[in-house]
Amino acid sequence: MTATLGRPSDIPALLRNCRDAVTPALRAAVARLDTAGREQAEYHLGWVELDGSPGSGGGKAVRPALALLSARAAGAPEETGVAGGVAVELVHNFSLLHDDLMDGDRERRHRPTVWARWGAPSAILCGDAMLALAVEVLLEDPSPHAAAAAGLVAVTTRELVRGQAEDIAFERRADVGVDECLSMAAGKTGSLLAASAAIGAVLAGAPEATIRGLRDYGMAVGMAFQLVDDLLGIWGDPAVTGKPVLSDLRSRKKSLPVTFAVQRGGAAGRELAAWLARPGDPAEPELRAAAALVERGGGREWARAEARRQLDVADRALAGAGLVAAPRAELSALGHYLVDREF
Amino acid sequence: MTATLGRPSDIPALLRNCRDAVTPALRAAVARLDTAGREQAEYHLGWVELDGSPGSGGGKAVRPALALLSARAAGAPEETGVAGGVAVELVHNFSLLHDDLMDGDRERRHRPTVWARWGAPSAILCGDAMLALAVEVLLEDPSPHAAAAAGLVAVTTRELVRGQAEDIAFERRADVGVDECLSMAAGKTGSLLAASAAIGAVLAGAPEATIRGLRDYGMAVGMAFQLVDDLLGIWGDPAVTGKPVLSDLRSRKKSLPVTFAVQRGGAAGRELAAWLARPGDPAEPELRAAAALVERGGGREWARAEARRQLDVADRALAGAGLVAAPRAELSALGHYLVDREF
Repeated sequence: MTATLGRPSDIPALLRNCRDAVTPALRAAVARLDTAGREQAEYHLGWVELDGSPGSGGGKAVRPALALLSARAAGAPEETGVAGGVAVELVHNFSLLHDDLMDGDRERRHRPTVWARWGAPSAILCGDAMLALAVEVLLEDPSPHAAAAAGLVAVTTRELVRGQAEDIAFERRADVGVDECLSMAAGKTGSLLAASAAIGAVLAGAPEATIRGLRDYGMAVGMAFQLVDDLLGIWGDPAVTGKPVLSDLRSRKKSLPVTFAVQRGGAAGRELAAWLARPGDPAEPELRAAAALVERGGGREWARAEARRQLDVADRALAGAGLVAAPRAELSALGHYLVDREF
Repeated sequence: MTATLGRPSDIPALLRNCRDAVTPALRAAVARLDTAGREQAEYHLGWVELDGSPGSGGGKAVRPALALLSARAAGAPEETGVAGGVAVELVHNFSLLHDDLMDGDRERRHRPTVWARWGAPSAILCGDAMLALAVEVLLEDPSPHAAAAAGLVAVTTRELVRGQAEDIAFERRADVGVDECLSMAAGKTGSLLAASAAIGAVLAGAPEATIRGLRDYGMAVGMAFQLVDDLLGIWGDPAVTGKPVLSDLRSRKKSLPVTFAVQRGGAAGRELAAWLARPGDPAEPELRAAAALVERGGGREWARAEARRQLDVADRALAGAGLVAAPRAELSALGHYLVDREF
């Protein structure tokens, strides 16, 4: 069952194996939800379609994979990380359910979101129940370190909330700084990847330095991932990203490369700031001109360099954490796989 | 500090003492929230007014009082229950924040609700953070039974969600049964009072039978409380309830007495059901006629008798739980105080 792979090309198989290892426990947990919540959660997770037919499956289950690898990296069997994998996947989906509603997103993966399908109260309640369930599943785990793992999930949830609150607040501000934007991304994206990468080791009772190293790795991978995601939101190929061309500029999102260019990009940055403040629904040539301003303001090159730097941070964190060699190589490869998309 | 009171007339002092005992820890917990969440939580809790001036205080803090009494009833010092009191108060307010949004209530205690003041995303995020904080506070408590207490909070949260989901679903249904309605009230009102009345004993490491008796007491008090609340929603004096006269009939709420009359009230019940299905914004004489139908259908007398019966259940549960005498008398008196409102 346990795949020992070290090359990025093997990562899809690794992710599938990890997903298969966690899914039975995740399904058993979701089956405990109240009738309506269960129906909505199973739909949201991609297990069931709107017409009741079997779903095509959910996402890549990156967070459960990190949880299982972190148990093995700490010298424990993969099974030690399963409750952690279930919990972080539940927390991830709790945050998606609430964020889709807050952001007004009517579609996710080309399907109606839960709030668009069942109404806002359902998305709120289903998310609330999933968050509670995550804690419940961890506290039922036989590990003597289950309470520490549940505490990690609770602290991480507050970090997710902080990141989302800042993201929403930044929409109304013209003066968002690069450091603020990085801190927001650390909350919104980094914190749960950091917790996922450590929770298996927490359940295994690993030493504090090991847990710290795994958290640092997860945080750095999360930051690199977000930087690349922001690059793809401007320069990504719509056929690959599944989003409209130049989508983040169209929505005037204060992403990391945009924020860098505005704050530190001199004349191009000032021109970009003026463009961002101007209302309207610009056509593609205008969006291309704005993308060129981000590039001239240094946002593209900075984000690329920063993503590479964070991947180095991630690998160094792994190197210093006293981990078992094979899962450590897989964690490294998984980090590169998540970040080495075309950018 | 610890008040030993047995007469209902002393209960306001008991509640004040318990609130004073829990407030420092609750304030310290809320101070950990992100900047926006903290501002919203402190406003919601009645500690700060909209203009930044000191607030007039929050609610009666019934749930923290139950938590402290349950620790003492199990033979532990009051302090043993403090983290439990903080946690149940946070969970209570998480649910108020989300319910106010779902129910579209723009005011609570004559002040704008958080979503009405700061927008829906703020109410969602502030509630999410309070729920996570409840778990965090418990898991930091030095009690060796802190994880069991956190597990109780997680399971209770899912019961709250189930109750609220059913309450919303019932609005769209004409055929809600009395048992369904009682089960909804058990989730929405009973479950958190049951958890509050047990969590101090859980933290004290009390025997299972003691915890069970305290939960049964809290559940029965919660059911009695809801029945009386529903009676007051129809026949309550607006000067006392703070709600408009006949408010629950005005909103055509499927409360417990209404559901009883519709389901088991013969001709009067059928007439009431037809009236509930009719659209419109009825004037007071029509609402008085509907209230008379609830009474002729037996809903008023049944709810009164059922509330009295639940108070007996509560007292019997206390009697069989092997509790310390003084806090047991206070729990009994608190139950009667909460329920013996004019009905």
